[in-house]
Amino acid sequence: MTELWLIGIGTGNPAHVTLEGQRALREAAVVLIPRKGAGKEDLAHLREGILAEAGATARVIHFDMPVRDESLPYGDRVARWHDEIARRWQAALAGAPEGPVALLVWGDPGLYDSTLRIAERLAPRPKLRVIPGITALQALTAAHAIPFNTVNGAVTVTTGRRLRDEGWPEGAETVVVMLDGACSFQALDPDGLHIWWGAYLGMAEQLLESGPLAQVAERIVARRAEARARHGWIMDTYLLRRG
Amino acid sequence: MTELWLIGIGTGNPAHVTLEGQRALREAAVVLIPRKGAGKEDLAHLREGILAEAGATARVIHFDMPVRDESLPYGDRVARWHDEIARRWQAALAGAPEGPVALLVWGDPGLYDSTLRIAERLAPRPKLRVIPGITALQALTAAHAIPFNTVNGAVTVTTGRRLRDEGWPEGAETVVVMLDGACSFQALDPDGLHIWWGAYLGMAEQLLESGPLAQVAERIVARRAEARARHGWIMDTYLLRRG
Repeated sequence: MTELWLIGIGTGNPAHVTLEGQRALREAAVVLIPRKGAGKEDLAHLREGILAEAGATARVIHFDMPVRDESLPYGDRVARWHDEIARRWQAALAGAPEGPVALLVWGDPGLYDSTLRIAERLAPRPKLRVIPGITALQALTAAHAIPFNTVNGAVTVTTGRRLRDEGWPEGAETVVVMLDGACSFQALDPDGLHIWWGAYLGMAEQLLESGPLAQVAERIVARRAEARARHGWIMDTYLLRRG
Repeated sequence: MTELWLIGIGTGNPAHVTLEGQRALREAAVVLIPRKGAGKEDLAHLREGILAEAGATARVIHFDMPVRDESLPYGDRVARWHDEIARRWQAALAGAPEGPVALLVWGDPGLYDSTLRIAERLAPRPKLRVIPGITALQALTAAHAIPFNTVNGAVTVTTGRRLRDEGWPEGAETVVVMLDGACSFQALDPDGLHIWWGAYLGMAEQLLESGPLAQVAERIVARRAEARARHGWIMDTYLLRRG
């Protein structure tokens, strides 16, 4: 692998793909795709549609995603998992055609995605090219037609885990929460907070809720649980604003 | 105006436009464009190229951007300016064809952009549709091939003004700075900080610098001043990370 292209493909709406992303998909020699897991058939379909619409002729090579060792502490667990994914990429590419290898990344390769960190483990290091894609943050604010920030305001982008462990970030006005599988907004004092929540953003199944956190938190928890049970998976994110 | 579409067109690379953005440009009846100001010819050209590549057949209507009243305090100045822009949009549309009106927004309509706030001033309120676009944050991290966040890390997105007024955000690990016309990183203690800077992101003229802030701050200030003098304008952004 001499060149590795990380192509951001947006958040579930195939029309989130950029012209730059489409061109890269057409020019890649190989597309490396994780084999679909249980309940992820929807996403596998979307990926196939994106490749077809781009007119991609690359060889598609699948690899199996390893399982995380939940007995390890968080940092080690993630590091070992990334090591193993890098090893599987290289193994899967044995005998592949020469030329740029592309990975399709949901959202943007820079934002709460591990692909860049896995790529750093490759030896020899391929030349990296990163193609930005629409993130869940943008799909969320677009769907609600709200600004990300207030005028001259700062925004803290954080994770569900940090919100649970550390509470509302000191001095923050707007907080956007990623990677939250546990509705961590429930750990906050809802007084004065407004929430804009979205799941399956950009997809036909998109769900939206918004309102004062005290009034809508329970409804979000219930809708999320119901949708997750129905689809077998869920991806969601939310923005909280004080005042 | 019964429908207003805010279309994010990315940060200067016409290939940042998404398929969704292209389709909307084709379906719009009118495209409303600010008349180019001094030194903004490059951007006007880019916009025309984007419309042509999308196959847009909309009527293009120009309006003059008002000048901000610098004698007013910051909040009032921005509010009055937005009022006046909304008034000019409505005046410019007198006699325009019926159908969706599109505005092309650099970056993403949600992120440090005033178009949504101006649209809220319209009476009667049109139906709003927001189409996300690639932001300078994403173009920056893609160009440097770096992640936006550390593993499970939070990121503070803020403005040059706040960084100057308030210093390094309390407890922050990663800070991304937007709307900074004054290289406000110079106000920080550079010890332990690393910077990734980019100007004209996504464009042929793109400039990048990175390294320990103590070592590269002066070079960035000099390159920025030189490039600004040469082009007549500059747009830049940067990411700072501790440790």
